[in-house]
Amino acid sequence: MSKYDTICAVATAAGVGAIAVIRVSGSDSHQAARYIFRKNGNTLESEDIEPYKAYYGEIFDPATDSKPMIDEVLVTFFKAPHSYTGEDSVEISCHGSEFVRQKILELLCVRGCRLAEPGEFSKRAYINGKLDLAQAEAVADLIAAQNEAEHRIAVNQLKGGFSNELRDLRSKLIDLTSLLELELDFSDEDVEFADRTKLDGLLDAALNHIGKLADSFHMGNAIKHGIPVAIIGETNTGKSTLLNAILGEERAIVSDIEGTTRDTIEETFTIEGTMYRFIDTAGIRQTDETIEKIGIERTFKKIAEADIVIGLLDGTKSVKHIVKAAEDIVDRVDVLKQDLLLFVNKSDLMGVDKMFTLNDDFTDRIQPAFEKNIERNGGYMTDEYCYSITGRDLHDIRNLTTFTYLTANDPADVESLKSRISGITNIPELDGNVTLVSNIRHYEALTHAKESLESVKKGLGDKLSADLLAQDLKQALYHIGSITGEVTSGEVLNNIFGRFCIGK
Amino acid sequence: MSKYDTICAVATAAGVGAIAVIRVSGSDSHQAARYIFRKNGNTLESEDIEPYKAYYGEIFDPATDSKPMIDEVLVTFFKAPHSYTGEDSVEISCHGSEFVRQKILELLCVRGCRLAEPGEFSKRAYINGKLDLAQAEAVADLIAAQNEAEHRIAVNQLKGGFSNELRDLRSKLIDLTSLLELELDFSDEDVEFADRTKLDGLLDAALNHIGKLADSFHMGNAIKHGIPVAIIGETNTGKSTLLNAILGEERAIVSDIEGTTRDTIEETFTIEGTMYRFIDTAGIRQTDETIEKIGIERTFKKIAEADIVIGLLDGTKSVKHIVKAAEDIVDRVDVLKQDLLLFVNKSDLMGVDKMFTLNDDFTDRIQPAFEKNIERNGGYMTDEYCYSITGRDLHDIRNLTTFTYLTANDPADVESLKSRISGITNIPELDGNVTLVSNIRHYEALTHAKESLESVKKGLGDKLSADLLAQDLKQALYHIGSITGEVTSGEVLNNIFGRFCIGK
Repeated sequence: MSKYDTICAVATAAGVGAIAVIRVSGSDSHQAARYIFRKNGNTLESEDIEPYKAYYGEIFDPATDSKPMIDEVLVTFFKAPHSYTGEDSVEISCHGSEFVRQKILELLCVRGCRLAEPGEFSKRAYINGKLDLAQAEAVADLIAAQNEAEHRIAVNQLKGGFSNELRDLRSKLIDLTSLLELELDFSDEDVEFADRTKLDGLLDAALNHIGKLADSFHMGNAIKHGIPVAIIGETNTGKSTLLNAILGEERAIVSDIEGTTRDTIEETFTIEGTMYRFIDTAGIRQTDETIEKIGIERTFKKIAEADIVIGLLDGTKSVKHIVKAAEDIVDRVDVLKQDLLLFVNKSDLMGVDKMFTLNDDFTDRIQPAFEKNIERNGGYMTDEYCYSITGRDLHDIRNLTTFTYLTANDPADVESLKSRISGITNIPELDGNVTLVSNIRHYEALTHAKESLESVKKGLGDKLSADLLAQDLKQALYHIGSITGEVTSGEVLNNIFGRFCIGK
Repeated sequence: MSKYDTICAVATAAGVGAIAVIRVSGSDSHQAARYIFRKNGNTLESEDIEPYKAYYGEIFDPATDSKPMIDEVLVTFFKAPHSYTGEDSVEISCHGSEFVRQKILELLCVRGCRLAEPGEFSKRAYINGKLDLAQAEAVADLIAAQNEAEHRIAVNQLKGGFSNELRDLRSKLIDLTSLLELELDFSDEDVEFADRTKLDGLLDAALNHIGKLADSFHMGNAIKHGIPVAIIGETNTGKSTLLNAILGEERAIVSDIEGTTRDTIEETFTIEGTMYRFIDTAGIRQTDETIEKIGIERTFKKIAEADIVIGLLDGTKSVKHIVKAAEDIVDRVDVLKQDLLLFVNKSDLMGVDKMFTLNDDFTDRIQPAFEKNIERNGGYMTDEYCYSITGRDLHDIRNLTTFTYLTANDPADVESLKSRISGITNIPELDGNVTLVSNIRHYEALTHAKESLESVKKGLGDKLSADLLAQDLKQALYHIGSITGEVTSGEVLNNIFGRFCIGK
């Protein structure tokens, strides 16, 4: 399979539409398209073709010339290197019928083209230097973007924002390498290395930069796949009812039988432009039933992965029971990293007296539980603030130590729950200048690069020889380069482009 | 809603694809597109725009200029009247993400465009004289075409083949009208009308032409919706098993319980380029069960509508039973209009002796049943041929009075059944010169025109006055004109274009 053969594919979505677009790319693309196209009954001459101009005419089958034409189309010719792939290419805009699309592809294949593999047009764009690897991946992200935030990340990456940051990072590392090589050159002379301070400074700057990018993956990933919100609580507190109410559809099976939900159910839902991934979990209870046990174990895992935890309590249980259940929930989360919202469900079935008692007991018991949680996770609280040492933005956790009454099938209650979720979410305003890493391949490469740089830093401290340090630096450079595709392997490329849609 | 306002819509199929195309049409379309498009950071000047040229650049939101662009696109400007709609129009080829498509439409609407209604682009093409009504309808048929025959009919109609025939017909009718008016002019003078023979001749020619077009609807409709093939027989003869075997999927529920199939099940399947609509019917038996009874009544209706009937017999029953069931099936069809294929199913469970007995008894009894059927339906048989007086092509029915052994879940048997179906289907080779009517609106208009012409013919015989005849002729002209839209109403137009897809 030569990289220079000519490929074709339908580039528009499958299904019936007014128009479909067929893409042809490769050195023979103009010839192939000319062969099956007539304008006013005549074949276009090569030398007459004006690139980037839409020609109106007919696609016909040269083998059965007498038969009626296949379709009336617009054909546009693109001249290398000014095309998406960087090769000569053609776009045929035809009627969007399945039959017409297949027939035109068939005619092109008879003329020597072959059907493109998924992502092959973008792969050629990368090979021909039209896009770096991170930009090509952004094309796939752009196409899949479902909301504004996702779209912004992809556009920034496509326009080279991320690639520029990486170039910046790379140049820092190359400066570092030069300094080290300077030391290597003079090592025989046992010259005291003059610029150790400068080296330290550059290293810290690079580590800081790389750390920020890697850290942004948490937010980038949340934007791409939805901010994870786990709904947890004992069995039969109404978690599935609440999920269905949020989604506005009967997604989870609801029954009065305890332990109805066994699998965790995940559905995304967009609130004020931000996508959330709601996770309905199996209710937590002691059980001997194997399947349910597995479900509960998964629940614990899902709780740990969530950014926001909705703890649901059953208002029909005794006050003592509710408070104990709330304590259990507080114990399950890391309040320094996760936002916890406690709701007492089935509030329509509670008396006012019970609510008063609950309010008092709750404050007495839950506030201390939060404080213990904070200490356990390495933070500390004063009267004014809670300090987190995890690097996450500080917030006043104490206003989360309250709880709210809720009736899960009351639409007004569900709306105000959605507002609270939206209120505690803090997504930075994304303009062209903010780079968020949203691709796990990039995140992993950054993490590897960071590890290599940390080895360099440690090596410097341990006074390792400069050539050993240079090895680690090269590793870091390699990982950074793998993101934009400056260094890469065929297998990696196939993995990346194989996930694209056909025709891209 | 002015017909001159500017409309926009996504013209490609819904769903995710590499590319989507947005169409804008109307006097303000160039302005609207220029407003949200930048090439190398600059807005295109009106006077610089070269029509039919693909411009590469960015769509951006002029209201939030500082934010990142929406998408990288190709924009092509079309100049009235050389566009699909006949108006100034623009095609924006963007990335096929839901978000990008919606955002661009939103920006166009902010700039004063409105979302197009289904079929509105084609409606404008019709209003602006780019397509007549039959051609516009052909566009919708072309998009929906699923096989070659359907596609050919649509292409012929789109290229004006059908419209030309109608023009021809129309000119014949206008000649007729002139002759009649000549008689009208001279009626006071009581001059014997000289050209009565010529009038008769023209009328017959027009009636013949119109009759052929109307008759072609049967074939045209069969091509469009599939040639109807009913699978009939007693309960539990394996009809659903056979349907599933033909389709190669588990479409109908199969069980050993008699009367499993209650609804008739229809599925299309293409054999050698021709689409068939296979209809699995409820088994025919005496029953008191209400739902099953309704199913059996529907079965009788479906048998009457089928072009081809597959009569299925149960080889495990007694010879006497099988022959009686076959007679019942022959009684149910009209062998002059419908092709009947008899199959004895479950042949793998039959002994050779039983087959011999069946062969003899069958010939003795079924041949006479066929002959009775032919006579009842107004045909007659000689030793050599069967003559049909229904106007349908003659064929030698007697080679259909045999039967074939079959095992419905033996792939080889099913293949040979398909070949037999394909062999008795007689679809004319469709080239650019054959016009088949495939649209029920056209068929109805032709039928009405034919009725009016028949009134003229009768009136001529009855020596009605020429002005009365002229009335009927005008009616005929009106109906013919309604097909291409020379005469039409807003309601009819809305009906027609409302069935189109959005963006067409």
